[in-house]
Amino acid sequence: MKPNIATFIACDAEYDEAKAVIFGAPFDQTTSFRPGTRFASQTMRSESFGIETYSPYQDKDLLDIKVMDAGDLELPFGDVERSLDMIYRQTKQILEDEKMPVMIGGEHLVTLPQFKAVLEKYPDVHIIHFDAHADLRMDYLGQQLSHACVMRRCFELVGENRIFQFGIRSGDRCEFGIKGIYTHKFDLATFPQMVEKLKGMPIYFTLDLDVLDPSVFPGTGTPEAGGITFKELLEAVMHLNKLNVVGFDVNELAPNYDHSGVSTAVACKILREILLATL
Amino acid sequence: MKPNIATFIACDAEYDEAKAVIFGAPFDQTTSFRPGTRFASQTMRSESFGIETYSPYQDKDLLDIKVMDAGDLELPFGDVERSLDMIYRQTKQILEDEKMPVMIGGEHLVTLPQFKAVLEKYPDVHIIHFDAHADLRMDYLGQQLSHACVMRRCFELVGENRIFQFGIRSGDRCEFGIKGIYTHKFDLATFPQMVEKLKGMPIYFTLDLDVLDPSVFPGTGTPEAGGITFKELLEAVMHLNKLNVVGFDVNELAPNYDHSGVSTAVACKILREILLATL
Amino acid sequence: MKPNIATFIACDAEYDEAKAVIFGAPFDQTTSFRPGTRFASQTMRSESFGIETYSPYQDKDLLDIKVMDAGDLELPFGDVERSLDMIYRQTKQILEDEKMPVMIGGEHLVTLPQFKAVLEKYPDVHIIHFDAHADLRMDYLGQQLSHACVMRRCFELVGENRIFQFGIRSGDRCEFGIKGIYTHKFDLATFPQMVEKLKGMPIYFTLDLDVLDPSVFPGTGTPEAGGITFKELLEAVMHLNKLNVVGFDVNELAPNYDHSGVSTAVACKILREILLATL
Amino acid sequence: MKPNIATFIACDAEYDEAKAVIFGAPFDQTTSFRPGTRFASQTMRSESFGIETYSPYQDKDLLDIKVMDAGDLELPFGDVERSLDMIYRQTKQILEDEKMPVMIGGEHLVTLPQFKAVLEKYPDVHIIHFDAHADLRMDYLGQQLSHACVMRRCFELVGENRIFQFGIRSGDRCEFGIKGIYTHKFDLATFPQMVEKLKGMPIYFTLDLDVLDPSVFPGTGTPEAGGITFKELLEAVMHLNKLNVVGFDVNELAPNYDHSGVSTAVACKILREILLATL
Amino acid sequence: MKPNIATFIACDAEYDEAKAVIFGAPFDQTTSFRPGTRFASQTMRSESFGIETYSPYQDKDLLDIKVMDAGDLELPFGDVERSLDMIYRQTKQILEDEKMPVMIGGEHLVTLPQFKAVLEKYPDVHIIHFDAHADLRMDYLGQQLSHACVMRRCFELVGENRIFQFGIRSGDRCEFGIKGIYTHKFDLATFPQMVEKLKGMPIYFTLDLDVLDPSVFPGTGTPEAGGITFKELLEAVMHLNKLNVVGFDVNELAPNYDHSGVSTAVACKILREILLATL
Amino acid sequence: MKPNIATFIACDAEYDEAKAVIFGAPFDQTTSFRPGTRFASQTMRSESFGIETYSPYQDKDLLDIKVMDAGDLELPFGDVERSLDMIYRQTKQILEDEKMPVMIGGEHLVTLPQFKAVLEKYPDVHIIHFDAHADLRMDYLGQQLSHACVMRRCFELVGENRIFQFGIRSGDRCEFGIKGIYTHKFDLATFPQMVEKLKGMPIYFTLDLDVLDPSVFPGTGTPEAGGITFKELLEAVMHLNKLNVVGFDVNELAPNYDHSGVSTAVACKILREILLATL
Repeated sequence: MKPNIATFIACDAEYDEAKAVIFGAPFDQTTSFRPGTRFASQTMRSESFGIETYSPYQDKDLLDIKVMDAGDLELPFGDVERSLDMIYRQTKQILEDEKMPVMIGGEHLVTLPQFKAVLEKYPDVHIIHFDAHADLRMDYLGQQLSHACVMRRCFELVGENRIFQFGIRSGDRCEFGIKGIYTHKFDLATFPQMVEKLKGMPIYFTLDLDVLDPSVFPGTGTPEAGGITFKELLEAVMHLNKLNVVGFDVNELAPNYDHSGVSTAVACKILREILLATL
Repeated sequence: MKPNIATFIACDAEYDEAKAVIFGAPFDQTTSFRPGTRFASQTMRSESFGIETYSPYQDKDLLDIKVMDAGDLELPFGDVERSLDMIYRQTKQILEDEKMPVMIGGEHLVTLPQFKAVLEKYPDVHIIHFDAHADLRMDYLGQQLSHACVMRRCFELVGENRIFQFGIRSGDRCEFGIKGIYTHKFDLATFPQMVEKLKGMPIYFTLDLDVLDPSVFPGTGTPEAGGITFKELLEAVMHLNKLNVVGFDVNELAPNYDHSGVSTAVACKILREILLATL
Repeated sequence: MKPNIATFIACDAEYDEAKAVIFGAPFDQTTSFRPGTRFASQTMRSESFGIETYSPYQDKDLLDIKVMDAGDLELPFGDVERSLDMIYRQTKQILEDEKMPVMIGGEHLVTLPQFKAVLEKYPDVHIIHFDAHADLRMDYLGQQLSHACVMRRCFELVGENRIFQFGIRSGDRCEFGIKGIYTHKFDLATFPQMVEKLKGMPIYFTLDLDVLDPSVFPGTGTPEAGGITFKELLEAVMHLNKLNVVGFDVNELAPNYDHSGVSTAVACKILREILLATL
Repeated sequence: MKPNIATFIACDAEYDEAKAVIFGAPFDQTTSFRPGTRFASQTMRSESFGIETYSPYQDKDLLDIKVMDAGDLELPFGDVERSLDMIYRQTKQILEDEKMPVMIGGEHLVTLPQFKAVLEKYPDVHIIHFDAHADLRMDYLGQQLSHACVMRRCFELVGENRIFQFGIRSGDRCEFGIKGIYTHKFDLATFPQMVEKLKGMPIYFTLDLDVLDPSVFPGTGTPEAGGITFKELLEAVMHLNKLNVVGFDVNELAPNYDHSGVSTAVACKILREILLATL
Repeated sequence: MKPNIATFIACDAEYDEAKAVIFGAPFDQTTSFRPGTRFASQTMRSESFGIETYSPYQDKDLLDIKVMDAGDLELPFGDVERSLDMIYRQTKQILEDEKMPVMIGGEHLVTLPQFKAVLEKYPDVHIIHFDAHADLRMDYLGQQLSHACVMRRCFELVGENRIFQFGIRSGDRCEFGIKGIYTHKFDLATFPQMVEKLKGMPIYFTLDLDVLDPSVFPGTGTPEAGGITFKELLEAVMHLNKLNVVGFDVNELAPNYDHSGVSTAVACKILREILLATL
Repeated sequence: MKPNIATFIACDAEYDEAKAVIFGAPFDQTTSFRPGTRFASQTMRSESFGIETYSPYQDKDLLDIKVMDAGDLELPFGDVERSLDMIYRQTKQILEDEKMPVMIGGEHLVTLPQFKAVLEKYPDVHIIHFDAHADLRMDYLGQQLSHACVMRRCFELVGENRIFQFGIRSGDRCEFGIKGIYTHKFDLATFPQMVEKLKGMPIYFTLDLDVLDPSVFPGTGTPEAGGITFKELLEAVMHLNKLNVVGFDVNELAPNYDHSGVSTAVACKILREILLATL
């Protein structure tokens, strides 16, 4: 008999053969409203067996690609910097081994270290960012390393004309209209055009699942009414196969706030579709 | 004083005068993910008093038609075949008495014995099937009598060109594109055209409520993102009055997964509308 | 140190400087199905800190307007008439001081006394009413002061051609098509036209949040499938800035039925948008 | 086929043969904290099938006694006096027919009209009252007909030395030590002695289930820590068979606050035991 | 990097070195009331990291013993006999390899095949059975292979004077007082004496966690009021180290009915203590 | 009209007249298992109106003492040291003004800065510590400022023979039996004797509410079975009036894990009793 292995459905490749490596970053230390995204990755693993491996949207099957699920990082609670560094080093390793890093957050701040590692390997990387919140504050309650500032920190790393935001419907006034950041408010209407422009570039995709309407995705820390539908998100994800995605993350699922399990099911299905679109 | 009678709202006709007979089939023995559809019928009865008897959509009222609610079958837990046989015999009896059988599942496998009885009375019956899942597997974990195989079993009974599926968005690859089955993926777009073709035929309608988007209907065992809206389903249901519906079922409500009660309210309202459209 | 003050976000003006005064009416005594709207106002206050004060839809900020949150009335449980009278007197006072009254229900019956006070000050006031239910019964289970009759009572006060209902999708047959009441069923399609007609008139706006689809707003006593989306409601609310709104209420949030907190978040965001559109 | 009859388990006798008649009083209009006891009776009926009819404690079986479940009264929401009058008349009728009235509340105020009818038939009746709260206020927020005053109102009807309270652990100062009322605080320690004294008298037993510790019975509107265990309550109930109980009620189950269903299971089991002890 | 291994805390020994092997039997097909025990084992694994490996009660540590967690059996839904056979063969294998089988149910019927395998290896094995329910019916709704009959089936296998039940407080009349079965009702009072008598014998221990009071353990399908406390159970478990336990199971945790997670935490702690007491 | 003031029930004194000052420390940044204690203080305020101000246990009334509720500190998420410093300064201020500081956590780490300020004012202070967990680790996942280490840090500040722990039932081996710390395992049996010894000394009381059994108090991050009853805790609290308590905290309520609200009700009642016993 063998020990119990628990991976996201069908993501059971060996490391050496894997083209992509999933890992969980159960980090929610700077969450200012409702914490709990730390439980996202383990909940997604067990609930992923409620979906199929096959996508009728893309006519592809997870069984036909090689993905490894490396489990969760064991992060030190209460030490933000050390936690971020562990994420950075994990992504660094995966990239060195020529695999695509796939991270399941955690709160959105986890994007910062993963993106930093990606930027080091792909200096001309561009960010596609789906979110309800701009996350562009200079600081939040005095903190610079905060989920509310994560895209500002990425902006400082990567510079102007590299970040493309969609679906943003919440922020304070000065988070909207920052020079050098493309912000499409409320929905994804201009996303297909942007995809055309970004073809050929290395792309980092960061998906804050609260871009979805709370009716679709109630299991998140800061639900923000007026979001996009699942079908709108799915359609956008299918455009990703035209791009050179070199890494991505999905974040902000907080499963305990949705006893129906629907939010987790949504997250699992979208992860399947992104994997199939980008590999 | 009289004993407490608990029926679906306004479905309190005597058997002899009833044009349709509702019964519950609290069966979820082959459910592979999250069980609990056994509680659908009793929950719908008590919650049905939160809706009106009158439909402003159809300008009809349940008070003006004769429906009897015969309660739930008492099925033997752990014996699939005997349970299915009890459903078969119940439907058989209702049909012999020239009434329309209306079953509240239970998991989707309950459709098989009800449909078998309907087919015996109406050999040229056609099936309209709304669902998120194709349910066309040959077997599931070695079982042939499984919710995941129910339409395959019906297909074996009724033969080619009799089954019309809509809304299907989940299955393995070989469940899509089976010769002799009409499968419209993802939504109900072609349903009105099919209604035109099926006019005059006896129709069995099986409604797996998970065809609805999980935002609308989270209270189900296997929520599958990307479904139809309530208004889309309602519009389709109103087309049923052009058809000769000889029996139907609604299934896969698992009320315990939705503490808000919204899923049950949705199921009650749709049952009202189908009754008003088909009687 | 100061005592703990808990207001709706940014509604912390002094009474004298306030242009609008929010108060809670935690009343659900005639609720016939699921009670609990009494908890709406206090829950909205604490959860309001999950949204921003700035609206990217209107490019306005609550920080720039003067609103006071006066807390909740302490109503006598079990005495409907005295409770309604307390609401009436609170609104009367606010209007005398030339401020706009903003009430958070409670069940919909709270609209009656607030509207009565508004009518006394603005005899030519018109009512805009968004709701799933017509609320036009003559009586309900023998009661005339019931949530199910509230618009009928208002109609008796204000007379014909003053009430404009939208989104109505539930009622008994005689609640539809009453002479002298404009009822647009199911959605808000004709609302923009009506806004044009009502320009310049004093307007009372009563928003029963169950006009929203239960997928968006499950936390309510009588969820009614087939409602409008949040975006549809938001768009309508933004039309209010063309009108002379002299008072409004939002009602029927019952937060305990939605453990995800999404319904409360929706209510908070809509209240922010109405305040910004009408002040 | 027969219509669906839904009774408390095994309480399906015909009215004429019944020795006791159960009915539900779904009334919670004066509840000042968390409403929802209106759902107690219907929830107890459906969940009662999770317990056995046989009691190993008393070696008796519900199948061997004749009890009828007459369903719920349909009470007018918002009209306290008329609601109480309907309860009064229901009990009056049952007593006239020489049967024992058994009421499932509802909030505790429902005891008043039932007790009034019992008192008219048995002028020397004594009350045994188990509760966390004294319920002896003169008025509550100006209301005299309030759950918080119910025993005060009964006291006014029946006079001194007739009320025996046990388990009381909450009230304001003046509710403790009222002349003419026996109040045993915190637990049931002196109950067996009192049973000896009350032998032969007609007894009305009113059981507010929140006398139980909230760990045992969380599903109630006003949970009060420090209550008795189930075994303590059960032991007391078994003493009732030494007394001449002429009517009783169990009240204050609010099932929606306990998603585990445990509170309802506790209420069902206690109702079974009281029925077996007193019939 | 390595794939994600998910075991019960500290039970990560290799098979060859393990003295005991845990496996999950996610089976709830004959559950007659509320299903969901199929989720027990996977939930216990992830929640087990909320407890320590060290027991201050026994001054022992899981880190010091060798236990392997072999994951869950993949059982065919809807086929009771085949499912039971898979359990039987799993236990058989573990016993052949001279390890102690430890099963996490599932409903109580899973005990039957595991016990059958144990009996074949240890013909003189005795059963210690803690439960709220006697589980001694001849059949249940016509089924012989049912959770309600499991101890009757074991009794038929093992014969008289081999089964010792404790805590039983529910059943029909004929389940109590069966010749050849020792039944201690309601609590564990005589358990220490029985331990003295059973010293030296091979013992199979089957723990239906609903022997605990529902206040302690609400997450179960059929909560039965009046159970034992956690401390009473713990004290009994610590007596097991005087006995020669050759196999055991813990069953009937249905985690979805307890959103607080307390029931799962209780189950994890008891499993830790039994492992430490018996290895 | 006045702005809405929300305090713990009856704790509405002005600062100058107050003998004790309550404040909330919504801090859960080092919580390693389930976060959410940040919501304790605001939930306790609104739910406190479900209990009385009068204690029949002590025959005292909150209305007769002067306590101020100063609301919550606004702590920077993600910055542990700065958060702790803000707590320290708040307590320092209260002590300088000769009032008793009363803190509502938050996770247990909040005790460290409050205790530090108390120690500076009362160098001979002793700690009474009720908890399920020893909290005596040197570090936890590399962090020294962690909830799991809080009493170790206090021990380093205060030295030997000053800390008295009760109820401890979880920890790793080396947390038990530390020289210079009195640890009474599992319950409070020796607490009355210790009270006798500590008379006259300044006492800091830190109450981790998870010392209660999870049946009584499920709403906490790390429920640990086998705890004390509410009555045992209450009895101990009443001993506090023999001591010179100079400050205290109650911590580790995480209200979102207990939808019944019972845990919050327990916390409110205990806070009332401690205030009445120590003022």
